[in-house]
Amino acid sequence: NEIDIAVIPGDGIGPEVVTEAVKVLNYVTNGGKQEIKLTYYKLGAEHWLETGETLPDETLAKIKQHDAILFGAVGAAPGDTRIPSGIIERELLLKLRFSLDHFVNLRPSKLYPGIESPLSNPGDIDFIVVREGTEGPYVGNGGSVRTGTAHEIATEVSVNTAYGVERVVRDAFRRASERDRKHVTLVHKHNVLVNAGHLWKRTVEAVAAEYPEVTHDYLHVDAATIFLTTDPSRFDVIVTDNLFGDILTDQAGAITGGIGLAASGNINMDRTYPSMFEPVHGSAPDIAGQQKADPTAAILSVALMLDHLGLSEEARSVEQAVEKEITSRQELTDNRTTSEIGDAIVALLA
Amino acid sequence: NEIDIAVIPGDGIGPEVVTEAVKVLNYVTNGGKQEIKLTYYKLGAEHWLETGETLPDETLAKIKQHDAILFGAVGAAPGDTRIPSGIIERELLLKLRFSLDHFVNLRPSKLYPGIESPLSNPGDIDFIVVREGTEGPYVGNGGSVRTGTAHEIATEVSVNTAYGVERVVRDAFRRASERDRKHVTLVHKHNVLVNAGHLWKRTVEAVAAEYPEVTHDYLHVDAATIFLTTDPSRFDVIVTDNLFGDILTDQAGAITGGIGLAASGNINMDRTYPSMFEPVHGSAPDIAGQQKADPTAAILSVALMLDHLGLSEEARSVEQAVEKEITSRQELTDNRTTSEIGDAIVALLA
Ligand SMILES: CC(C)[C@H](C(=O)O)[C@@H](O)C(=O)O
Ligand SMILES: CC(C)[C@H](C(=O)O)[C@@H](O)C(=O)O
Repeated sequence: NEIDIAVIPGDGIGPEVVTEAVKVLNYVTNGGKQEIKLTYYKLGAEHWLETGETLPDETLAKIKQHDAILFGAVGAAPGDTRIPSGIIERELLLKLRFSLDHFVNLRPSKLYPGIESPLSNPGDIDFIVVREGTEGPYVGNGGSVRTGTAHEIATEVSVNTAYGVERVVRDAFRRASERDRKHVTLVHKHNVLVNAGHLWKRTVEAVAAEYPEVTHDYLHVDAATIFLTTDPSRFDVIVTDNLFGDILTDQAGAITGGIGLAASGNINMDRTYPSMFEPVHGSAPDIAGQQKADPTAAILSVALMLDHLGLSEEARSVEQAVEKEITSRQELTDNRTTSEIGDAIVALLA
Repeated sequence: NEIDIAVIPGDGIGPEVVTEAVKVLNYVTNGGKQEIKLTYYKLGAEHWLETGETLPDETLAKIKQHDAILFGAVGAAPGDTRIPSGIIERELLLKLRFSLDHFVNLRPSKLYPGIESPLSNPGDIDFIVVREGTEGPYVGNGGSVRTGTAHEIATEVSVNTAYGVERVVRDAFRRASERDRKHVTLVHKHNVLVNAGHLWKRTVEAVAAEYPEVTHDYLHVDAATIFLTTDPSRFDVIVTDNLFGDILTDQAGAITGGIGLAASGNINMDRTYPSMFEPVHGSAPDIAGQQKADPTAAILSVALMLDHLGLSEEARSVEQAVEKEITSRQELTDNRTTSEIGDAIVALLA
């Protein structure tokens, strides 16, 4: 029962943070004598520059054979005009999320002891965002006519289905039912986006009836950004669409000390294809190769991966080691390098 | 040369804050002997309950005859099931914005001295958001099929035109050119919303060429929420679409001490129809009729209205009086009532 992982380090700081994530993964599983097989895939902006490939079908077919995917970060430096803007994001990252049916984009937000929030009164921030991952305005269903003329019309279509909304809402309620506060907040904008919004609202009402122990409420997305600023500890589980989830999880990363700590899982709960675990941050080319990147988000993504693979004890150990490492930073005068943070977490696992 | 204003006090705290706004408007203009004619329109959730009307065509036709509109706030209490959700927002507020071609939704954000921001290091926040007001996902161009079944599909279409984007981008650059820092930030999500995003990007590049003195940059909407948390003083003029503008301006209100202070103008720059000035906050039925609401946002909306009507000296006086009133709050032990705040601002104008 070897676990077979595809590793996509990607660009910029991706390889550095993935090195530390793999270090922790190997350590925590081999203690339990769990065999891990790693297969590396070279993909991303650099690879595109060398080969013109984003994600060839044969590569995708191979990736589908693995048990899970560990993803670093992809993307060229902003302003690198050699790479058509957005192509790596859409043809690699989003193609993986959509082809592998990652309908739960899980993004936990926690303010760790010792981490300074930019909010003066952050309170006890500890919520998860269950972001839909395969629908909404992300479906690429738009177009433009008379492009480049004074009469151009450009559209973007948000596509939402009962099938797609129900499975992710159900996931959110199940996760809420396993948490202390057992509360789900639906975030949408149903007063304006009537059709999509009411599908989401009706679905939440229906699923809520199956979870009498879980309470729920609703916030418009604009109001949600206010509460994330003034009272983030009110949130337990947020369920929302692909675009609102994208926006809110970056804000959530910011209020908990930066997306250098924010982990995520792109999860296929039906297990028809491998799920993918990645830090929320990008490739940060400006600090790449300098051992300046914080590998914590990548390492916490390993914990989400272990959880998904049924190794929940190992997952908890990683989370606890990370929490200790973060707390210990208060006593440090120098910043740790990328690999020093990885080593410190391994030492705390020992 | 009487100025002819339509007043729509609306629901909840709307009438209270509008009373103070009118007090200030009368005071500041009659000092300069400017005649003001006010015509009140009863519209909103209460009016709907009494008559079943949202905004009849004859009423809209009458409103079109005025020079400008002062709007309070509309909307029923959350959970008031007598009123179909969103109907007042769409059939009254959005109908006004769309019918009167309010293509510039102007929302200034300023952290006044003496106001506590929820951010521990807010810096010097002083930017404006130029939100597009007549296109994007707000056009009501969506639908659903197999509604209420397990096979439902609900769509929302964001419509963006060269005509619509160019006029608002041009407005943003003109405003930037009149400000100290002369900087425009386009916020969108062009790596995912390719068609709309690239129309916006190309338009910004084209208009920027006409304003060599104005610098500009670009942020994805998710990243913008991070910078609004960690470094809001970097912003000078943000230009963005209707939905992103909705989200970012609530967050902007939160970091500058709450939307109780946030004013807005729904502006028709071509002056084919009257522009409308309204506080960003809602009708807050829970505190209505108790003199607890802060009328500052409504009063600052009067300043935006005066500016639009060419009375810029009067506008500056109102802004300065508001700023003084806010600063003086530090020395108060009790909160001022709604009308005490209005009176204090009038006294400072004297
Ligand atoms: C890179 C981009 C396509 C992606 C998204 O929008 O989902 C990123 O912002 C994220 O949140 O993972
Ligand atoms: C009430 C609602 C329709 C409105 C909007 O979404 O524009 C409000 O949130 C605003 O920002 O003025």
